[in-house]
Amino acid sequence: MKLTSKAAGTFAIAPTPFFDDGRIDDKSIDSLIDFYASIGCDGVTVLGILGEAPKLESAESESVATRFIKRAGDRLQIIVGVSAPGFAAMRSLALKSMDAGAAAVMIAPPPHLRTDDQINTYFKQATEAIGEDVPWVLQDYPLTLNVIMTNAVIRKIVMDSKSCVMLKHEDWPGLEKITALRGFQKDGSLRELSILTGNGGTFLDFEMERGADGAMTGYAFPEMLIDVVNLSKKGERDKAHDLFDAHLPLVRYEQQPGVGLSVRKYVLQKRGIIASAAQRKPGPVLSAPAKAEVDYLLSRVARFDKRARIEN
Amino acid sequence: MKLTSKAAGTFAIAPTPFFDDGRIDDKSIDSLIDFYASIGCDGVTVLGILGEAPKLESAESESVATRFIKRAGDRLQIIVGVSAPGFAAMRSLALKSMDAGAAAVMIAPPPHLRTDDQINTYFKQATEAIGEDVPWVLQDYPLTLNVIMTNAVIRKIVMDSKSCVMLKHEDWPGLEKITALRGFQKDGSLRELSILTGNGGTFLDFEMERGADGAMTGYAFPEMLIDVVNLSKKGERDKAHDLFDAHLPLVRYEQQPGVGLSVRKYVLQKRGIIASAAQRKPGPVLSAPAKAEVDYLLSRVARFDKRARIEN
Amino acid sequence: MKLTSKAAGTFAIAPTPFFDDGRIDDKSIDSLIDFYASIGCDGVTVLGILGEAPKLESAESESVATRFIKRAGDRLQIIVGVSAPGFAAMRSLALKSMDAGAAAVMIAPPPHLRTDDQINTYFKQATEAIGEDVPWVLQDYPLTLNVIMTNAVIRKIVMDSKSCVMLKHEDWPGLEKITALRGFQKDGSLRELSILTGNGGTFLDFEMERGADGAMTGYAFPEMLIDVVNLSKKGERDKAHDLFDAHLPLVRYEQQPGVGLSVRKYVLQKRGIIASAAQRKPGPVLSAPAKAEVDYLLSRVARFDKRARIEN
Amino acid sequence: MKLTSKAAGTFAIAPTPFFDDGRIDDKSIDSLIDFYASIGCDGVTVLGILGEAPKLESAESESVATRFIKRAGDRLQIIVGVSAPGFAAMRSLALKSMDAGAAAVMIAPPPHLRTDDQINTYFKQATEAIGEDVPWVLQDYPLTLNVIMTNAVIRKIVMDSKSCVMLKHEDWPGLEKITALRGFQKDGSLRELSILTGNGGTFLDFEMERGADGAMTGYAFPEMLIDVVNLSKKGERDKAHDLFDAHLPLVRYEQQPGVGLSVRKYVLQKRGIIASAAQRKPGPVLSAPAKAEVDYLLSRVARFDKRARIEN
Repeated sequence: MKLTSKAAGTFAIAPTPFFDDGRIDDKSIDSLIDFYASIGCDGVTVLGILGEAPKLESAESESVATRFIKRAGDRLQIIVGVSAPGFAAMRSLALKSMDAGAAAVMIAPPPHLRTDDQINTYFKQATEAIGEDVPWVLQDYPLTLNVIMTNAVIRKIVMDSKSCVMLKHEDWPGLEKITALRGFQKDGSLRELSILTGNGGTFLDFEMERGADGAMTGYAFPEMLIDVVNLSKKGERDKAHDLFDAHLPLVRYEQQPGVGLSVRKYVLQKRGIIASAAQRKPGPVLSAPAKAEVDYLLSRVARFDKRARIEN
Repeated sequence: MKLTSKAAGTFAIAPTPFFDDGRIDDKSIDSLIDFYASIGCDGVTVLGILGEAPKLESAESESVATRFIKRAGDRLQIIVGVSAPGFAAMRSLALKSMDAGAAAVMIAPPPHLRTDDQINTYFKQATEAIGEDVPWVLQDYPLTLNVIMTNAVIRKIVMDSKSCVMLKHEDWPGLEKITALRGFQKDGSLRELSILTGNGGTFLDFEMERGADGAMTGYAFPEMLIDVVNLSKKGERDKAHDLFDAHLPLVRYEQQPGVGLSVRKYVLQKRGIIASAAQRKPGPVLSAPAKAEVDYLLSRVARFDKRARIEN
Repeated sequence: MKLTSKAAGTFAIAPTPFFDDGRIDDKSIDSLIDFYASIGCDGVTVLGILGEAPKLESAESESVATRFIKRAGDRLQIIVGVSAPGFAAMRSLALKSMDAGAAAVMIAPPPHLRTDDQINTYFKQATEAIGEDVPWVLQDYPLTLNVIMTNAVIRKIVMDSKSCVMLKHEDWPGLEKITALRGFQKDGSLRELSILTGNGGTFLDFEMERGADGAMTGYAFPEMLIDVVNLSKKGERDKAHDLFDAHLPLVRYEQQPGVGLSVRKYVLQKRGIIASAAQRKPGPVLSAPAKAEVDYLLSRVARFDKRARIEN
Repeated sequence: MKLTSKAAGTFAIAPTPFFDDGRIDDKSIDSLIDFYASIGCDGVTVLGILGEAPKLESAESESVATRFIKRAGDRLQIIVGVSAPGFAAMRSLALKSMDAGAAAVMIAPPPHLRTDDQINTYFKQATEAIGEDVPWVLQDYPLTLNVIMTNAVIRKIVMDSKSCVMLKHEDWPGLEKITALRGFQKDGSLRELSILTGNGGTFLDFEMERGADGAMTGYAFPEMLIDVVNLSKKGERDKAHDLFDAHLPLVRYEQQPGVGLSVRKYVLQKRGIIASAAQRKPGPVLSAPAKAEVDYLLSRVARFDKRARIEN
């Protein structure tokens, strides 16, 4: 069940559920996994940026990852974010996660990397640290991570590390990047690589048309992501866009930096999937006007997509 | 016709039109202005970030600003972007623009400003440089400018400079900022201030509901901005959102950093408003797939809003 | 033996000693402590930036801190760097260190902090996280940490947190900052605060004259720091500068970003104080020409200060 | 008299002299040039970062550059800093400077460049903009410019542009960079290139030994730079270091970011070379304690180097 470069479909980015007092809510981990499995996700990524990973102690990270993995069982592939300030901590969490049954780990570049060489070297060292038998996902998210990887740099990282099986693509703008990487594969300079796209899904409609294999993001209605991915693969372009466009006002609202996770947890709680929308401190709190705006957006989405109709 | 803190409505951000060889296209300046006036814009902002201002020599900047101002006449208020690495150049362009009949100037903070004090001091010095009788617009655009101004800093800048009459609001997220600034006015700690919102219009629907006075952005269908601003002011919430949502897929596409201006000029050229979509070098070029995507988005917008139906 | 705002003298920043294979070298921890005690240091700071703290797993950090603390006993006050991406990890290391007998902890701001409010809020939350009974040192090191704290912000942090007892001052330029903070104390707006200076000692000569209480930095000849601090306090200005100037060529060489720690460990190893100059990977390696340059500098220092004469 | 890749020796970075009220002081331009010629400088660089170039209007920049060039005549090669936010302004100042008799122009990368490709492309476009017959100097100053160029990137820039004749080297740390670039020349992958070093001269002693061709920096005693360059070339290592070390306390003081130019202008005014130490606003002012510190440092330098004895 290890992740391969043939991976495709929809991988949900899971938040880490907390109780209002900041303790980890294990039962909501279970219900999250059950929900993702029930709607047909292919996998789940945990302890990513949205998983509030840096707020956890190392023992907590291991415990959360293990809980997600065990609950998923054979139903879902679990990818564990293992980005860390140092390789010792990265290695430790990677090995423990793989031992527990994770499908892969995900690594984001630290913000001080600037030159092409620095970036390439970092991922070589990371591969060494976790061991070359651990499949890993390269996260390319310049807006948040502040590291800019050109197409050529991504190619070099992938060609230098056989265990890099997937790109979590969330450059902005990013459509030409997909086209360029797929072009590299056509000209033989890049090997097979799964590309799943993030950015909250904001460009999923066209990303699929440019050659993405699917979505990996945390939008609180992963059902939409799954459907758009599938419709697009079937070539039902207009239908894919119709569904996507109905959700876009909410997708856009959820994709606001900083406050986005609050929106996401608010909706997931409203949907009954997690018990509390709380973030571990320090974290932003959704204002009353913001909640009302999200409610209004949900009601508008529900005119087109009944799954967004929430009773309460 | 000077800008005041009562300004409201829709101010279009105008691109600077070039011929394919990089020369300035004066006739397209005229047709841009005529277009903005014909659809009911209240004003036009020129030589902003989207106006490729840093690519112009100082004599060219003066010439472009003057052409826009003269053509506008009494039909539109013109705001001239005068941000510059030094105050001597800022002062010079500000004075020449006001002499030519501009309504105001717009100033963005330079990227090295970090602390609250540095920001406050910068705008005090800028006010001194241009002279206290020149009305000016404060641009708050952290995503691009990399300067973060808190609500309290904006208040201090405005209270310290009587000639600051407007905030060009484009923080992201930014809805709470509008609410906070309007709250300052209610508690008496902030004087009257016009707030027009940017960010390509991506949040215009809710920005109006939070208390914005209108829009100042460069979306290639300013007709939508005008209508949403007006519908929102009339309290026709659902109608405002219906129109906004129909355009949002294109708004989102146009709001991509770097490539956004290419999209905008492509659409404006397609609409026959400017002669060439060329940017002065160096500038990104829109790929064939991207053009096809924009065409598809236009056709989808046109199903709801006939003004987006373009023959060719 | 807890640290108070009356702390003064010289606190050495200790490197974390590793074996060539990256394991922690406990015996060299002991010899480092014994050395610092023997020359008359007042305290030692461990797990700072120079201590390669982010490369350690959390269990290792606790183990290293405890070893330093136990070996120091009553001879030296130990300050433990507890900066972490999240408050849970910070709290955990702080409590374990204090339980083991640390005198205080040191906290540096994370690099994403920009506005005055963000910085103030961060340190309020940090104080809450570690508990208000844990004395702590505020690190102000913009060159490396990329966070700019004005004099007023430092004052607010200190006035808001009674347990902040010391400023590790290493702004560059920083002399006026010392003068300003001491001025705040004269005008009654700032309470008592120990100020120890860093930056490798590059400005220690004048920092003492501006009102610093001593040095906290990692220069490989802390004997010089101790003497300059003492000479300066006795008012022997020329003697202080004569000694300082003799070391400055090496101080400057050691203060190079990135490579500095290599130089420091090279000299400490040459002096027989640690067994290996190795850094845990990834870390820069000192080139042969660089080693020869350091040797030459040592020989030049030794003409004035015999303690720099190293046999081998 | 155009600059070639054989250039060597000492090029002073000249400040732009202003009167107290901010007007340009042409007579002090003349006396600066006469001074630099009298002590044996090989050239002078004007309108660099230290020349407060961004504070000048474009007409002023041309006027200042021309004045320096005309006064220098055949005595000194003048390099004109032409860095600008856009290529139109860069081209204009470059052509006017070369027409007036400049030896070359100097170009620094704008701060938004991140990837190797972005940097390479920028300098290709810059070369096209100024014309391939204009010799130019590449400025590599990451601390201030925030752009990181690897050795390989510098090589590519130089190999791609025949008219790039010199590197103004001021990376920090930078010694290994000189060794690496000289190594590229030995292995045949890099053509002849003049390397002059900056950073206020802080590492000039070893930079010469690593293979630099000379100094290009603004230290207020360029006589020291000239002597160290010459002593080093003659192989008189200890003498070079003795002189260098005597000045290092002042060199270090002058190399403080932001305040450095104040120190430099203060000393140049004290030496009678410029009429006023004023910077055009906004600029930092040297405090009374800082002036006293500089005076003390001068008196200490004068014990070794009589040229630092200043009567007043």
